[in-house]
Amino acid sequence: MTVDTLAVVGVGLIGGSIGLAAKKRGLARRVLGVGRARDSLERALALGAIDEMFLDLEAAARRANFMVFATPVDRIAAQVVAAARACAPGTLLTDAGSTKERILIEIEGQLTPGVHFIGSHPLAGSEKRGPDFANAELFQDRWTVITPTAQTADIALERAKLFWRALGCRVKVMTPQEHDRALALTSHLPHLLASALAGILPPEIFDLAASGFRDTTRVAASDPQLWTAIFAHNRPAVREALEKLKDRLDTLDQVLAEGDWKTLDSLLNQAKKVRDALGS
Amino acid sequence: MTVDTLAVVGVGLIGGSIGLAAKKRGLARRVLGVGRARDSLERALALGAIDEMFLDLEAAARRANFMVFATPVDRIAAQVVAAARACAPGTLLTDAGSTKERILIEIEGQLTPGVHFIGSHPLAGSEKRGPDFANAELFQDRWTVITPTAQTADIALERAKLFWRALGCRVKVMTPQEHDRALALTSHLPHLLASALAGILPPEIFDLAASGFRDTTRVAASDPQLWTAIFAHNRPAVREALEKLKDRLDTLDQVLAEGDWKTLDSLLNQAKKVRDALGS
Repeated sequence: MTVDTLAVVGVGLIGGSIGLAAKKRGLARRVLGVGRARDSLERALALGAIDEMFLDLEAAARRANFMVFATPVDRIAAQVVAAARACAPGTLLTDAGSTKERILIEIEGQLTPGVHFIGSHPLAGSEKRGPDFANAELFQDRWTVITPTAQTADIALERAKLFWRALGCRVKVMTPQEHDRALALTSHLPHLLASALAGILPPEIFDLAASGFRDTTRVAASDPQLWTAIFAHNRPAVREALEKLKDRLDTLDQVLAEGDWKTLDSLLNQAKKVRDALGS
Repeated sequence: MTVDTLAVVGVGLIGGSIGLAAKKRGLARRVLGVGRARDSLERALALGAIDEMFLDLEAAARRANFMVFATPVDRIAAQVVAAARACAPGTLLTDAGSTKERILIEIEGQLTPGVHFIGSHPLAGSEKRGPDFANAELFQDRWTVITPTAQTADIALERAKLFWRALGCRVKVMTPQEHDRALALTSHLPHLLASALAGILPPEIFDLAASGFRDTTRVAASDPQLWTAIFAHNRPAVREALEKLKDRLDTLDQVLAEGDWKTLDSLLNQAKKVRDALGS
């Protein structure tokens, strides 16, 4: 797979890394970077993540053969619809958003014939933001979930798979609903929890928060605006995941109240097995 | 401060690191390692964390001028009382346990006159276990909490401060109760939460647990037996911390239910400020 002109919309950590990886691996001949902030675009250009910068989405869309939207989830659908109007037929559009169903609902039926959109979510990133944290190896051996729907053309799915694999990813295909329910547990709930835990720490004991606290709350440093949009998009699945967690915390509290150390030990053991299976 | 003969009881990650740091920094002329498992002791010897190994606690106690107990919290008190009977007058005993009040209650009144015990807790370590993870720099710039009581001799407090500072620590003095309440929030609750979150992850979505999930659950890989003992020692404070967290989760759930994105954003912002203040 090679792309003549790749447009990356949003040149932050994820978009910048897509540009760097696409160039390093010879996936794209030319990378156009699209953004709203001139300084981020200039930084991405200086870092070699993009070859050319655009403040005008449609100007970039007219020249692209493949577009990736790495913008906040509440902006992706409108940008995709706007870009699709300017794209040449045959252009494939995909995204890197953390939620899928709502984006797809907002896009489907809005696209120019001949222009395809398929949802993607590369499971990579960190609590950091901006092109300075971009990294050509960010996607190496990470999973990307691709979420075709009944309306997705086979060719779009095949090209999206080739694209993410060319960046180093392993690919998993799921429905948008399956994706959103799974990610509610594996990503959105951990963010909510980390935030809850950081939020209740009184300033007078900050010094006593050592590596355990820091690891457990690391993602609470993420951008609140990005995450509010993710929680808004995936509200029912996040609340369901939170319900599951609260049930487990109630069980643990009950076990503590009863001093049932054997059950506590076995619950801690079961969780350790899960965590050990995930690796570092 | 120098110690002629330092005895380290328990030669795992913490005990091994105490031995390595004490030797590297010239704090102790000779380090005796005490343990129950011959292979751990041999490993600690091979790594240079100790100079001599003992399966017999009292034999080491007879030769020590300073003893540190880096064993599970439910074993420290009995070992301190047993060792104190064999120690020469003037020997100082301290520990590295994650809980303080119960250990002190079990020890006070049991010590031979002239032998002093003072509780300590160096806030260092990880989910790893054993002398292979020991590291001479583990204590560099970390806090150690020292918890004197009304019965603690001033000289014991002063020597304990000098000891931990000589290993690279910064020192904070608190009552055992203050320590246990603070650590319930900064350490014990994060462990419980990490374990709850890891525990509810279904195997079919392990692949979708990326860095956010891994960070948030990292400490769930810790040794369940050690942690059951910590929870048993500090039950009321841990339950109080858990109650606080559940209140915050209820608030977040309510905000999600109402779709009150402005309040959600401000809660996420408040937590981000805390997390940013802690540093990496």
